[in-house]
Amino acid sequence: MTTVPVLGPDSPARNLVCRACGAQFPIAAQHACYECFGPLEVEYDLGALKRVTREQIEAGPDNIWRYAALLPAGQDPALRVTLDPGMTPLVNAGLLAAELGITAPLWVKDDSANPTHSFKDRVVSVALTAAKALGFTRYACASTGNLANSVAAHAARSGTRSIVFIPSDLERGKIITTAVYGGDLVAIEGSYDDVNRLCSELVETDDFEDTAFVNVNVRPFYAEGSKTLGYEVAEQLGWRIPAQVVIPMASGELLTKVDKAFAELVEIGLVEAPAEGWTVFGAQSAGCNPIALALHNETDEITPQKPTGIAKSLNIGDPAAGLYALESVRRTGGWMEYADDDEIRDAIRLLARTTGVFAETAGGVTVACLVKLVKSGKLDPTKETVVFNTGEGLKTLDAVAELVGPTYQVKPSLKAAREAGILS
Amino acid sequence: MTTVPVLGPDSPARNLVCRACGAQFPIAAQHACYECFGPLEVEYDLGALKRVTREQIEAGPDNIWRYAALLPAGQDPALRVTLDPGMTPLVNAGLLAAELGITAPLWVKDDSANPTHSFKDRVVSVALTAAKALGFTRYACASTGNLANSVAAHAARSGTRSIVFIPSDLERGKIITTAVYGGDLVAIEGSYDDVNRLCSELVETDDFEDTAFVNVNVRPFYAEGSKTLGYEVAEQLGWRIPAQVVIPMASGELLTKVDKAFAELVEIGLVEAPAEGWTVFGAQSAGCNPIALALHNETDEITPQKPTGIAKSLNIGDPAAGLYALESVRRTGGWMEYADDDEIRDAIRLLARTTGVFAETAGGVTVACLVKLVKSGKLDPTKETVVFNTGEGLKTLDAVAELVGPTYQVKPSLKAAREAGILS
Repeated sequence: MTTVPVLGPDSPARNLVCRACGAQFPIAAQHACYECFGPLEVEYDLGALKRVTREQIEAGPDNIWRYAALLPAGQDPALRVTLDPGMTPLVNAGLLAAELGITAPLWVKDDSANPTHSFKDRVVSVALTAAKALGFTRYACASTGNLANSVAAHAARSGTRSIVFIPSDLERGKIITTAVYGGDLVAIEGSYDDVNRLCSELVETDDFEDTAFVNVNVRPFYAEGSKTLGYEVAEQLGWRIPAQVVIPMASGELLTKVDKAFAELVEIGLVEAPAEGWTVFGAQSAGCNPIALALHNETDEITPQKPTGIAKSLNIGDPAAGLYALESVRRTGGWMEYADDDEIRDAIRLLARTTGVFAETAGGVTVACLVKLVKSGKLDPTKETVVFNTGEGLKTLDAVAELVGPTYQVKPSLKAAREAGILS
Repeated sequence: MTTVPVLGPDSPARNLVCRACGAQFPIAAQHACYECFGPLEVEYDLGALKRVTREQIEAGPDNIWRYAALLPAGQDPALRVTLDPGMTPLVNAGLLAAELGITAPLWVKDDSANPTHSFKDRVVSVALTAAKALGFTRYACASTGNLANSVAAHAARSGTRSIVFIPSDLERGKIITTAVYGGDLVAIEGSYDDVNRLCSELVETDDFEDTAFVNVNVRPFYAEGSKTLGYEVAEQLGWRIPAQVVIPMASGELLTKVDKAFAELVEIGLVEAPAEGWTVFGAQSAGCNPIALALHNETDEITPQKPTGIAKSLNIGDPAAGLYALESVRRTGGWMEYADDDEIRDAIRLLARTTGVFAETAGGVTVACLVKLVKSGKLDPTKETVVFNTGEGLKTLDAVAELVGPTYQVKPSLKAAREAGILS
């Protein structure tokens, strides 16, 4: 085991460890176990984490770096590659709760407030900060859109080359919002899973030796960025863990990392363990529901799918962390739901109308699944609940474009306004 | 003069005062002087403002309400109508500075980070909080788009009815992002100035007695919200006023209020007066430049225009605060520029490529004018400068849609990638 702090002298990261077989590896740009090909995860110096105090965190900046002492990289502000995401609003969704018959507090953790308007800024900031420390000089990713936006913007701000790979049928908003930053943008004629496969091949070539693919060769660091969502929710609730969380699933990684963040906060003494624990719910779209189906079928067999439907940012048919998401949900007594396109569109409007938060399709999936979980009784309406909105409605306008529009169109005169019924 | 604190017991607002003739009026939903029809402004109890300390502000929330003691309304958190905007990033634009030959620090105050992604959330939060205190039960506005988004979202979160008026030719993104919140949306077949005129008539009717038009009958409170942009820049620089600011102009109000905020901070002792003062620059688009033209023509005569061009959020042909913007710029030794559509598009890409900030057309206008001001020598490249990005690129995608896109389109194979030149 290495003890050389390759990610900086203050990094609490000590090893990579295989989530499948437990084999340990030194900190490096490695994402799969040499023993069993299982996915690797960052392992920390628990003593270092236990020395972190609430006061220390609260005195930090109003972004994810307030938790730098709990992350693998970024302890030195001067060496960060970041747009400073995080500390996004935890919105009190009282009107939504009332409409759904939820009697306990209901919150929306609104990550559309991040710099490129999705939760991906968190994982990209951590991944690229680690990548820079590891010596990479070009940044890349395979993306369903939001990640593309974030990597391209991070690269632009840091003055670094980037090359981003996306499926060519992505939403227009996400293509333009990547290309505008001026890096290379490669549209692949295939699904996200095809794009991901190609990137796994490219990363092994000499031409890409200098290139950090945030969700391939530096994936273990990338994944840790999602923990900040869990940390923030707990801190924003006054250092408490909510009884129930509803989280969208693409690879399934976000769900597992929020669960991990809660467990870590308890383990290192930053929050008290809730007497009844917490319950994790997962949300997918009907067009891409391999993890939820495995749960419903009471199996560990996750059957890859060819995704369809409007929730493109969740369209990962072969989800890398699906098994771990199943484990989190089963262990905490939760459940998974999926919602079809009409339900997603309705949920986007429901959320907007009751909270002022305009979510992208992934947020619609989550709220639609919340609705179904309440109806089926799987989610307890008398317990405090946090739902995660991971992206911005402006990026997926087409989802609701046909459904909403002006209620009146009139000529600019009082007479016309009266005739249209705007005045009685 | 009233001494009844209609806006709450802790409001420092004491009167409304005519900006033209100085006549005073009690705090009320009134926007024009009964004596001379001049615009009204909020006047404060200077003693109350002088008791505000930096420590008090710094201990406040990370949004505009940290400055509640300097605003007309919102001192009681429970009575606010707000999405909690503000404390948006002050981005170090070092790469942009280098490209333009600016040797002093250059900053972008990025208000696309607000909840509905424009600076309008600031003015709407203050206006509607005042409106609620004044007894209004429906919220409205005349808007070029961003204001529509913000009023509709504020109304949704607060569970209040809204009716929003827009020109029918607005960008698709701004129409959908208003309609999705579920309030009434009236598309007017005319220009913003037509919309504004109609709203001025509607507000006098019985049907709209219960309705606060944020930029008509409660305009004096609305306008004060813009001061928070100036406060934040000074606080984020460590309680210093920058030597130069470049600000986009629609009505011209934002520019005058940032200038006012700086003056107020000096007057009440929260910042030291800079030895050489500060210089205010204004930015318009070539398709709507009545204020800049008046400056260039050395006149106080602002000739109304019929706006054209892609910077729709700045398309106010008959700018209400134009005269006061001229006054600010002349008094501080500044200048005004305007940029055509191609310059705006180029500037959006320049800003994105060098800072990771994707601005809407109004931000493009401001950066394009910065470029021209540096070239002409009007702006001193050796002095610290802050440029204001007031909105989000996702809302005006069409502006750059034709100019940016994937650099490669390939099939998902290593062979195809090699043939396309992605691998050497």
